Amino acid sequence: MDVRNLAVIGLGNVGSALVALLEERGQQIRDEYGLDLRITGIMSRRIGMVADPDGLPLRVLAEGDVPEGEPYSVDGIGAWLERCRADVLVELSPLDIEQGEPATSFLRAALERGVHGVTANKGPVVHALRELTALADANGVRFRFESATADCLPVYTLYRESLPLERPHRVRGLVNGTTSVILELMGLGRSFDEGVRLAQERGIAEADPSLDIDGFDAAVKVVAIANVLMDADLRLDDVDVTGIRALDAGAVRYQASIGAPLRLVATIERDGDGDVRARVAPEPVAAGDPLHGMGLLDLGLHFDGDLMPGLTVIGRDLEPRQTAYGVLVDILGVLRGR
Amino acid sequence: MDVRNLAVIGLGNVGSALVALLEERGQQIRDEYGLDLRITGIMSRRIGMVADPDGLPLRVLAEGDVPEGEPYSVDGIGAWLERCRADVLVELSPLDIEQGEPATSFLRAALERGVHGVTANKGPVVHALRELTALADANGVRFRFESATADCLPVYTLYRESLPLERPHRVRGLVNGTTSVILELMGLGRSFDEGVRLAQERGIAEADPSLDIDGFDAAVKVVAIANVLMDADLRLDDVDVTGIRALDAGAVRYQASIGAPLRLVATIERDGDGDVRARVAPEPVAAGDPLHGMGLLDLGLHFDGDLMPGLTVIGRDLEPRQTAYGVLVDILGVLRGR
Repeated sequence: MDVRNLAVIGLGNVGSALVALLEERGQQIRDEYGLDLRITGIMSRRIGMVADPDGLPLRVLAEGDVPEGEPYSVDGIGAWLERCRADVLVELSPLDIEQGEPATSFLRAALERGVHGVTANKGPVVHALRELTALADANGVRFRFESATADCLPVYTLYRESLPLERPHRVRGLVNGTTSVILELMGLGRSFDEGVRLAQERGIAEADPSLDIDGFDAAVKVVAIANVLMDADLRLDDVDVTGIRALDAGAVRYQASIGAPLRLVATIERDGDGDVRARVAPEPVAAGDPLHGMGLLDLGLHFDGDLMPGLTVIGRDLEPRQTAYGVLVDILGVLRGR
Repeated sequence: MDVRNLAVIGLGNVGSALVALLEERGQQIRDEYGLDLRITGIMSRRIGMVADPDGLPLRVLAEGDVPEGEPYSVDGIGAWLERCRADVLVELSPLDIEQGEPATSFLRAALERGVHGVTANKGPVVHALRELTALADANGVRFRFESATADCLPVYTLYRESLPLERPHRVRGLVNGTTSVILELMGLGRSFDEGVRLAQERGIAEADPSLDIDGFDAAVKVVAIANVLMDADLRLDDVDVTGIRALDAGAVRYQASIGAPLRLVATIERDGDGDVRARVAPEPVAAGDPLHGMGLLDLGLHFDGDLMPGLTVIGRDLEPRQTAYGVLVDILGVLRGR
């Protein structure tokens, strides 16, 4: 049995769900993969920095009972990782869309110490994908971020493992749950604010829902998909972004009534010159569209390519447990050499 | 650069498409995976048994110009594999639904010699899954069959790599292209026979289309999905099968006219006692159904599970090139230790 140590930054919705999953599935992971996964460190602004190289008791953590740690310090990350004897840093700190910090610094500290970096945080993916990937390669470890785009819906593992050699030339998707909830409720005649509240209740809205509403959460995901799957080198301000804040309520209701409801659609296309162009905007999703009929809590993508001419993947009822599962998929992946 | 040798049985639609893919993507495979894939043997009833451990010229094979071989002999498989110095046996012989032969014997001969076995043939999967998997394990190699279910649509690689730990408790899908073509054309008022001809023209009908029409092609796929993904131990006659031959043409047209067209739906469910039950039958696929809106040449599956509550995967416009790509995915997988 291989004992492997996880150091976890952030113990919010997703971090807590990950602890619960490790507790629930620990025996299965030992049986099927020969891996005994322990959490040897927890760090957050609220908790501080806790490290125990013998492993923190998952059951106790799952009940929310976390031992008091040393004071939180971004600069203390390296020493903390060493005290944790971490094999994998699990980075779940809140999104900083402007700089991707301190998440990028945390991941850099891990990778340069030969510790795998797994994150559900879009910030480091959009701001430092190439740097962190190169740093991981140079140190013989991996930088992975499956759940930063669509929770556990397979996107990056899908192309890496199931669709080798393939580069889609067009990707279209619904990658923001909050706007789907808002637009669905508005289509039923309810208010924008009711939609926001429902998305927050289900734990899918960003801490600051304006990132969802104004399209930047989706735009960040678009950058990640384009740069990872399509060999592009987009930055956030290369994406043409229109949010849903200015939509007319009557127009939203009308589109719903004719069966072509508005959704915040992300589109990435390689044009005739080989350039990759990306946009996020409210668009009708009519019958016949591969994204038609998706539910409130669904995320989905349609890929057009050469080896796989058209592929639709849709994940239903995605909640924080599924984000945590996506993180666990990456943890198992890096420890299995994926 | 790792030079690896493929021995290929069968050079029909899929085998020829595989040769073309290896020719088209050889440089990319060398660049991205450090693998130099050669075909060192071709065997079929028509061609006989050709072996050249230095590699047969792909361009010449792709043009259909295959050197004359020794006489075909099922018993000669072991000696032929050795003459090919095969790393992977690519088994693409025609389906034998009753016994899975001689494909199972071919794969057994490879696996027991420490040669990986990859097949697009459902026969050995449905008749000898456990035996061949155990034999592969005992010899340190792999038995893989991604494209036996839905061409390159990720199914087994998806669960193995992207959704570890997960066992769906319900799977529902359209896994037979021929019946979708027939039912779509009948819905438009065309005849059953026109549908069969179109499916044959597109290269998706089984050599004997009665296996498609009577539901047994789908039933074989159901057995594979249940046994691989759901830990079941079904045999073909455990599946409750109703084909489309007896359908009333008026009923097919009526269902199409109300937007709930009939399709041959495969369903696998784990019941309350933990038993897995499977059926294949024509059923309406209405709006709101994850399988609604699928096109003529699409195959798709919807999985309900615990870690991933609902997942739909649909592949569009799947033709023999996509079956060959699924085979290539498996070849790259086994050579990369997947």
